[in-house]
Amino acid sequence: MGQLQPEKAFPDKEKNFSEWYSLILERAELVDIRYNVKGFVVYRPNLMRLINLIRDELERGLIETGHQPVLFPLVIPMSYLRKEEEHITGFEAEVFKIKGEEGEEDLALRPTSETAFYPMYSLWIHSYRDLPLKLFQTVTVYRKETKATRPLIRGREFLWIEAHDAFSSKEEALTQVSEDIRITRNALEKFGLAFIVVEREEWDKFPGAEKTFAFDCIMPEGKVLQIATTHYLGTKFSVPFEIVFLDKDGSKKYVHQTCFGPGLSRMAAAIISTHGDEFGLVLPFEVAPIQVVIVPIPKEGFEEKVFEKCFEIGERLRRLNVRVKVDDSEDRPGSKFYKWELFGVPLRVEVGVKEVEEKKITLFRRDMRKRWQVDDRSLEQEVLNVKEDILRFLKEKAQNRLDCSLVRINSRDEGIEASKNGKIIIMNFCGTQECSEKVKEDTGGYEIRGKRVDVEEKVWGPCAWCGRPAEKVVVVAKAF
Amino acid sequence: MGQLQPEKAFPDKEKNFSEWYSLILERAELVDIRYNVKGFVVYRPNLMRLINLIRDELERGLIETGHQPVLFPLVIPMSYLRKEEEHITGFEAEVFKIKGEEGEEDLALRPTSETAFYPMYSLWIHSYRDLPLKLFQTVTVYRKETKATRPLIRGREFLWIEAHDAFSSKEEALTQVSEDIRITRNALEKFGLAFIVVEREEWDKFPGAEKTFAFDCIMPEGKVLQIATTHYLGTKFSVPFEIVFLDKDGSKKYVHQTCFGPGLSRMAAAIISTHGDEFGLVLPFEVAPIQVVIVPIPKEGFEEKVFEKCFEIGERLRRLNVRVKVDDSEDRPGSKFYKWELFGVPLRVEVGVKEVEEKKITLFRRDMRKRWQVDDRSLEQEVLNVKEDILRFLKEKAQNRLDCSLVRINSRDEGIEASKNGKIIIMNFCGTQECSEKVKEDTGGYEIRGKRVDVEEKVWGPCAWCGRPAEKVVVVAKAF
Repeated sequence: MGQLQPEKAFPDKEKNFSEWYSLILERAELVDIRYNVKGFVVYRPNLMRLINLIRDELERGLIETGHQPVLFPLVIPMSYLRKEEEHITGFEAEVFKIKGEEGEEDLALRPTSETAFYPMYSLWIHSYRDLPLKLFQTVTVYRKETKATRPLIRGREFLWIEAHDAFSSKEEALTQVSEDIRITRNALEKFGLAFIVVEREEWDKFPGAEKTFAFDCIMPEGKVLQIATTHYLGTKFSVPFEIVFLDKDGSKKYVHQTCFGPGLSRMAAAIISTHGDEFGLVLPFEVAPIQVVIVPIPKEGFEEKVFEKCFEIGERLRRLNVRVKVDDSEDRPGSKFYKWELFGVPLRVEVGVKEVEEKKITLFRRDMRKRWQVDDRSLEQEVLNVKEDILRFLKEKAQNRLDCSLVRINSRDEGIEASKNGKIIIMNFCGTQECSEKVKEDTGGYEIRGKRVDVEEKVWGPCAWCGRPAEKVVVVAKAF
Repeated sequence: MGQLQPEKAFPDKEKNFSEWYSLILERAELVDIRYNVKGFVVYRPNLMRLINLIRDELERGLIETGHQPVLFPLVIPMSYLRKEEEHITGFEAEVFKIKGEEGEEDLALRPTSETAFYPMYSLWIHSYRDLPLKLFQTVTVYRKETKATRPLIRGREFLWIEAHDAFSSKEEALTQVSEDIRITRNALEKFGLAFIVVEREEWDKFPGAEKTFAFDCIMPEGKVLQIATTHYLGTKFSVPFEIVFLDKDGSKKYVHQTCFGPGLSRMAAAIISTHGDEFGLVLPFEVAPIQVVIVPIPKEGFEEKVFEKCFEIGERLRRLNVRVKVDDSEDRPGSKFYKWELFGVPLRVEVGVKEVEEKKITLFRRDMRKRWQVDDRSLEQEVLNVKEDILRFLKEKAQNRLDCSLVRINSRDEGIEASKNGKIIIMNFCGTQECSEKVKEDTGGYEIRGKRVDVEEKVWGPCAWCGRPAEKVVVVAKAF
């Protein structure tokens, strides 16, 4: 049974992302923007359940690699925040402050928590036996963004996980960075997202980091969104915070640190934007708060039979650990179809008299909007197959979108042309900030996102912009 | 095999709770108080894992009763906070404020979120079809406590869940209050805690509530700790916030509201304080981050055999969904015993050569500090039995402590005597605030906690303090 073609409720996200995104956040009941404080929005149940599933996935990755949960205070004394110079320079303008009580210093709402964690690290770490120390917290952070805000993408309050790790050597710290990348990649695979992993340029690093690696996700209209970063901090914080350990050889050394920040709000934004379509939200099974909705299609005189069958199927699927909802509300089936498609439920089971009598079950896949029938007794196997297939379909679609966006250029003219077409650029680059500013100016906002670390690229010519010798191949894109 | 009697590491908590509590928070690695901002502490992994399990239990109760998760902003415009007069009067002095930007009003850090939620409720609720609305969030809240702070018990930042529900009638709202009490009771039973449920006096209600019900937990030295409250708000917020719905009969009505606040930090404090002893923390299985620790006792030449057996047992217990740790660190067995007892792990499995050869397993229960042996093949059944038995033992001990604390008094003199003995008083009460203040003065701080709602009590005489006719039987106690 073929595709369905009812009226489309949303504009084409590739042509008008802003409108599509605002509408979907509202109609899929994800966010309410009417809270009346700039940059702060209300996360509604459909979003919060999605975010909790994203959180669980990332926390699992962290815990499996030896991280432990903690909770540090929201407030950071300004003197802590000022201890590392690049760090405070990077964040000072964005900090929300609470006036100190008499005789006390002002407090910052955490914009990130390096300077909250590390004074304690200097108290907790004494010997190589105390290392590695690997802690994380799942919290909201606060940044007084001056740019235009957009829910989940750029806000003054957002949800993330931050992991702060300390090691006895640079090698171990760099291994942790690779592990952070692996944890993120594993999670993003389950979310069906397409992404590139890059090392940020010198001038674009996290304030206080030696090296910054970032996950950029491809979004509609060809823009990218940074959804996670991991940083090698070297000893740049351990020196001012005096995080010193006695090593096996009896000498005192500064720890080498890393920090890792997967953004939960932004991952939600990426999932919503990557998979959603003109009918609403589309969620992969893995992060769908409701994975299967069962809709009864009652006929007078057969109501009981139909409802009974719905609850029976519900029970059978629950036994497979599927998150099921039997929609026994009073709405008409058509309204239910519409609502659960809008909310992105991956699979719908429709049960009418025919299904009961013929022992056939009608299924509907949200991702392909395809309806088909299976034998009642093979329902469980079909659900398990479809689950995998939905993720594969969504992932391939996202990957294809990314692959088709990438274009290799050899000159400034080609670059400007590519930027006009909303492409993501791959080019040889001299490595200077001066040239990166020129790129931005010439393309109306394209940024050097950095050198890919997930695929190997060899320089094949001079810098595409200035013609000087190239140092590396970089990704250049417009970012949120 | 009998009880163990090594050196006790902590003072008697019933004689010196303050010292006991501070020491256990430090040594069991629960809290670090050295963050250097008054009333703010660091929650360490052993605490955070405990709190996450407490959270899961309460969130499950809320979700099963139709509540949905949300996240509202941390900041509340002062004009929202001021909309209900009693509410702002109750909280104004305690509010942390962020100065508004030019032309914008000041923002409060949420001390509780009624005034953040309810402006949105007036936008979301239009018809009886939108009711009931049952939402909750798990967040930290901020109150500028002026009293002496104590970690988890009284802090300027604490973790709780807050549920905010709206109904079309008073009856439904009051039914919700009973449901909140049931959810809390179910959770506290799993934590092995002893408690009383009371309705707070008029002058002691939540600011803005019509009725306040509270769970008071018995703590060492006979004091009580409020660990959860649920409030019937009537229409006291729905009127100023204009939360109006069109009822079935076509008339516009104000919703009736409830809010419910189980305190996660305080429940952790109650679990730690109720079950802990002179050897450290004692946790019931249900909220123990590690439920069973397996300690190898290797002998030269048999290391491999012993470790193999440990991992085998670990696998077997994991199959029962038990949270197991095999402690294969390099510490000596004695240090491991000490550490895991201090950290409150409910059950220890000791595996030496004898255990391997004789197919007998040695077990150690933390709650009774009892060691015994079982046949290898009955290990699983034994663990499941012990799990139940530990909870029963801890719960009975706690309940017994509470029962023995309660004393009925008939006069002021008896009341003063009881207060000197650290008892919790049951007495007839006239119901006046004047008399309650006299009680406080005469006893050095005993407070009328309210009328019990979990057991029925009939007035049996005049007010024990003033001799006037009594209105009810109340519980009187010293509180944290």
